Amino acid sequence: MKKSILFVLFVLVGWYSISAQQNISFDNPQAKLSPIVNQDNSVSFRLYAPNAQVVTLRGDWMAPEIKADLMKGDDGWWTYTSQPLQSDMYIYTYDVDGTQIIDPLSVFQVRDVNSLFTLFYIDGENGDYYQVQDVPHGSVNHRWYKSDVLDADRRMTIYTPPGYENSSKDYPVLYLLHGSGGDEDAWSTLGVAPRILDNLIAQGKAQEMIVVMPNGNPSKQAAPGETSENLAYIPAMSHTMPGYNNGKYEESFAEIVNFVDNNYRTKPQKESRAIAGLSMGGFHSLYISANMPNTFNYVGLFSPATRVRGSEGNDVEVYQDMDRKLSNQNKNGYELYWIGCGTDDFLYGEIEEFRNKMTSLNIPYEYIETDRGHIWSNWRNYLIEFTQQLFHE
Amino acid sequence: MKKSILFVLFVLVGWYSISAQQNISFDNPQAKLSPIVNQDNSVSFRLYAPNAQVVTLRGDWMAPEIKADLMKGDDGWWTYTSQPLQSDMYIYTYDVDGTQIIDPLSVFQVRDVNSLFTLFYIDGENGDYYQVQDVPHGSVNHRWYKSDVLDADRRMTIYTPPGYENSSKDYPVLYLLHGSGGDEDAWSTLGVAPRILDNLIAQGKAQEMIVVMPNGNPSKQAAPGETSENLAYIPAMSHTMPGYNNGKYEESFAEIVNFVDNNYRTKPQKESRAIAGLSMGGFHSLYISANMPNTFNYVGLFSPATRVRGSEGNDVEVYQDMDRKLSNQNKNGYELYWIGCGTDDFLYGEIEEFRNKMTSLNIPYEYIETDRGHIWSNWRNYLIEFTQQLFHE
Repeated sequence: MKKSILFVLFVLVGWYSISAQQNISFDNPQAKLSPIVNQDNSVSFRLYAPNAQVVTLRGDWMAPEIKADLMKGDDGWWTYTSQPLQSDMYIYTYDVDGTQIIDPLSVFQVRDVNSLFTLFYIDGENGDYYQVQDVPHGSVNHRWYKSDVLDADRRMTIYTPPGYENSSKDYPVLYLLHGSGGDEDAWSTLGVAPRILDNLIAQGKAQEMIVVMPNGNPSKQAAPGETSENLAYIPAMSHTMPGYNNGKYEESFAEIVNFVDNNYRTKPQKESRAIAGLSMGGFHSLYISANMPNTFNYVGLFSPATRVRGSEGNDVEVYQDMDRKLSNQNKNGYELYWIGCGTDDFLYGEIEEFRNKMTSLNIPYEYIETDRGHIWSNWRNYLIEFTQQLFHE
Repeated sequence: MKKSILFVLFVLVGWYSISAQQNISFDNPQAKLSPIVNQDNSVSFRLYAPNAQVVTLRGDWMAPEIKADLMKGDDGWWTYTSQPLQSDMYIYTYDVDGTQIIDPLSVFQVRDVNSLFTLFYIDGENGDYYQVQDVPHGSVNHRWYKSDVLDADRRMTIYTPPGYENSSKDYPVLYLLHGSGGDEDAWSTLGVAPRILDNLIAQGKAQEMIVVMPNGNPSKQAAPGETSENLAYIPAMSHTMPGYNNGKYEESFAEIVNFVDNNYRTKPQKESRAIAGLSMGGFHSLYISANMPNTFNYVGLFSPATRVRGSEGNDVEVYQDMDRKLSNQNKNGYELYWIGCGTDDFLYGEIEEFRNKMTSLNIPYEYIETDRGHIWSNWRNYLIEFTQQLFHE
């Protein structure tokens, strides 16, 4: 018995050490559980940088202007422990003497615009929705469609709920739009929408639905690295790219709805369609739903931009005559017009102005105000709230 | 005119600087094109680390034991320029005073087992197959299936070729298996199989086919971060995990084939099925195809392990009586039995032994020998070679 265990160990160790000379991939002895979530939900970070002078940490649970200082130990390891954190998904980076890096001890990272961040979860409440649970899982598909309006093949991400492939049912559709910093991958990575839906559906809190996550940057076919620009497409905010707020993307949206209705078993009518988005995606949801005023029964604006930016949108029909369009949308009827905003959001005033306009036009909407600002923590939370209200027949 | 341009700039800059106080994501001023591929295909790297003492670089174009030293400039930037490189996809990391990091100037990274690497391409030959070209793109789907043999829901990645969704045709299927360090994401990330297929199909060099990339780690349901272990599943080599080479995965493969035939428009017969894999996936391909001896018309072993490792596989029927099984497979007939190996591969001797066995049994196979070792550069290249030979009717 002992002999055979020794033999196994020999073979495994033998393979490992030999193959480590063949593929540079699998010899990072540093990979370990990091950061460490403590029992009180404080979080401990550590970084080995024996010659660094200043090491700081930025995490999205901290006020934006704050950087936490790590303390250097005699052994070259820098450490920091946060205060106890609420249940959520969090991201952070280190700054080592002026260079921003992700945690070398973890491989779990996510890109937001032009930065990578290491991620972790705090269990208990919302954080449980953002993690994989032992429940049935939907499918996540990366797929291309043709836009004649934008004259390009374009990539989208589509979630189909558990059981979609094994039924002949038709499903309602949520169109879920990203912000100026995002692309068709944002809601499935930073937004963990597929997991939120898996978990809400498993608990019977949300209806089974298809979630369509298109790319909202009209000058780009797909996310950075997924276009024929390849690595030359350095991620940037959409509002720094051409075509932002020129009305073409909003105009092209009918192509997306047609594509989805033609390629998936949808319920292809207003009663079974929702559109929602964050920031720029809230802007898109607002203007698209108003210009297709009998298409969506549910509208969700998460920290939405509401004003047209730049001059490309001057004289563009999509953005004009909005009082009449919104009133018309209201007259046609909808089940829910939902607005969410954080008290510290830099768009707070702009959103308040829009709400006042809606009130003065006697157009009903639901409004949720949370604390904090223009952040994914709010947007994931809004998705949990919004999706539970959809498609009850 | 000038006035309106200034106005646009003001609005954009205004939004950016304000929103940067709201979402920590989009203020990495360091993100830029990195590394720089020079005109002669040498590659220049740079890293800001003003207080570091030793900065080295490991790249998968270098001999495995080599680390390149970066030189420090007076401005705190460390630099290194490689020799000219052949067209390929490459990955690298830095080591800064003992800590392994990816390039802080790039967001384009890929995970291999427990390490992240920054990636780049050299254009011209194979590297062109690994990048996105202006050609029609297939779909990449992440999907779960039920395995009764392994008693688990399990995740797989499935590529369907351009046009799949808009036709009523039936398609042949390539089952493409990862190595001990991989999972269901390996062939679509490090292996860029979807791009290779998109590009070969567009050039008329490969037939349209479905590519199924399952998870070959029997004790894991999915890739790290995609199971209900969430971040506690620190990536590890499969041969360090339970169930490795106990025969259960091979036994479960019939479930995968049935799932695919039941859920996709396949040609559900031997003539239209191929199975291939690298290292452990080559092992799986060898034993699965021999144990399902009339199921696959094409077998591809890329740097395959051929011997059973560990003691779990003792007395397991799947691994026994292989001379008879292989002879039976040969008698049933197949179109192609393809083996690829690098001259420096640590499995070279083991693969030679297997080839000798095949020769002595009078079982035909095709053998390609390349330079270098047990590396993705070879496996991507083998995929290019192998797929062009599939499904010619």
